[in-house]
Amino acid sequence: MDITPLFTITYGLYVVGSRSGDKLNAQISNTVFQVTADPVKVAVSINKTELTHELISKTGKCCIGVLSESANMAFIGNFGFKSGRDVDKFATIPCTLAPSGCPMPGVNILAFIDLDICDSIDVDTHTVFIGEVTDCGITGEGTPMSYSYYREVLCGKTPPTAPSYRSASHDVEKEQKRKKEITLKKYVCNICGYVYDPEKGDPDGGIEPGTTFEDIPDGWVCPVCGVGKDQFSIL
Amino acid sequence: MDITPLFTITYGLYVVGSRSGDKLNAQISNTVFQVTADPVKVAVSINKTELTHELISKTGKCCIGVLSESANMAFIGNFGFKSGRDVDKFATIPCTLAPSGCPMPGVNILAFIDLDICDSIDVDTHTVFIGEVTDCGITGEGTPMSYSYYREVLCGKTPPTAPSYRSASHDVEKEQKRKKEITLKKYVCNICGYVYDPEKGDPDGGIEPGTTFEDIPDGWVCPVCGVGKDQFSIL
Repeated sequence: MDITPLFTITYGLYVVGSRSGDKLNAQISNTVFQVTADPVKVAVSINKTELTHELISKTGKCCIGVLSESANMAFIGNFGFKSGRDVDKFATIPCTLAPSGCPMPGVNILAFIDLDICDSIDVDTHTVFIGEVTDCGITGEGTPMSYSYYREVLCGKTPPTAPSYRSASHDVEKEQKRKKEITLKKYVCNICGYVYDPEKGDPDGGIEPGTTFEDIPDGWVCPVCGVGKDQFSIL
Repeated sequence: MDITPLFTITYGLYVVGSRSGDKLNAQISNTVFQVTADPVKVAVSINKTELTHELISKTGKCCIGVLSESANMAFIGNFGFKSGRDVDKFATIPCTLAPSGCPMPGVNILAFIDLDICDSIDVDTHTVFIGEVTDCGITGEGTPMSYSYYREVLCGKTPPTAPSYRSASHDVEKEQKRKKEITLKKYVCNICGYVYDPEKGDPDGGIEPGTTFEDIPDGWVCPVCGVGKDQFSIL
C-alpha cells in the first residue's frame, strides 16, 4: 500500500521530557494531541524501544514542550536522533525543570504541559500514553513548529522509530531531483538523513561554504546526529 | 488551570465519514494522527455523544478525509456544527464512497484514509479509536487545512463536543478587542460562534456588505450552523 496520502496529516513537533531519579531525558515526538477537554487530557505516542518509553512506564510522568520554529536542525537532532542511553542530551543545551520535575530545554520551547499518565494503549511498535494535564504554562513567544515546516523548510528527516516513519522509497521523487544535481557531490548521513551540501558547507561546524566533502577534516561530525564522516554516502 | 498553553498544539482538520446501512454520516475532527508505521495505524478522538461515535462503535469502520484549505466556513459548519441525527449532511454536498463504503465529501478533500478499528480507549467524554489503515488515496491537490488556519484565517470556533474545546472565557481577549468595535454592531451566533459583520455582510447568503443585522430578512439563517436570526446576540 502506498502510504503517501498519510503524509497530508498535520502534526506539530514536541520535546517529551522524562525523568527517573537523576536520569534526565528528552526526545522529539510529532504525535501529541488533546483527547478531552474536561478533564484536560493529552495523548502522546512513544516507540517502545525509546528510553523515554522506559522512563514514562516507570514513573507515570512526562512533560511535553511545544517546539518553536526557532529551533534549528542541530537542536532537533540532539533530541531526535540520539538516544539518552548513549548521551546526556542536556550536556550542551540548558535544562529547566517543569513542576513535575521532568526536564525541558531552556530554549526553543513555547509552552510546557505536565502530564500524569492515567492510561495507555499498546499499538504494536508504540504505546499511546494518555495523561491528565497537571500543570502547563507559556515559556516563550513565537510560532509553534509544524511537522511540515520541519520537513520542508528545515529539510528534516523522520527516524525509523517515529510513528510516521517514511522509508527511503517514499522519498524517491525528492532523491531523484537531488540526483540531477549530483555534480555538486552532496553527501547524505546514513543515520539521520542530513545532507551535506558543499555549496552551503556547515558554518556552525566550522566548515566554510564551498568545501567539498572530501576536504572536510576527519574529526568533523554530522551536525544533526553526531556520527563521523564514514557514515556518509554520496547522494 | 489556565489551559491557554494547550492552544499551541498543532492540529489538522479532518472529515470523519461513517455509515450503518443506508445511514451515511460525516463530522469534523481535529484529532487524527498516525500512531504506528508498521502496521500503519491511525487514531481519531470522537465525542461519545456524536452520531459518528455510535456508527463507528457499531460497524468498526470509518474513513478519514484530509480537509483542504479550499473549504469555507459553510462547508465546515455543515459537517462540524450540525448533527447527522437532525440533518442529512450530504443533502447539499456531493458524496463519494470510499472503498470501505464510508461516505466522503466529493469536494475539499485532499486524501482519504480508510480505517478498520482494532482498538479503542475510553477517555471520559471521548473515545480514542485506533484503526488499521486498509486503504488510502490522494483525491485532490492543495494545502491541508491546519487548525490554526481554521481559527485564525477563517475565524472558526470550536464546538463544545471537541476535545480541544475552548470555553468563551478563553476567548476573552479576542472578544474584548472586538467589543471596542461595537459601534459596528456585530452579532454572534449563540450556537456556533459565527460572527455577522455588517461591513462584510453574507454575500453567499444573499446579504450585501453594509447591511445591518436588523435589516437582514427574517428567513436568513446562520451560514455556518443554519439557525435563525433569533439565535444571535449582539457582540
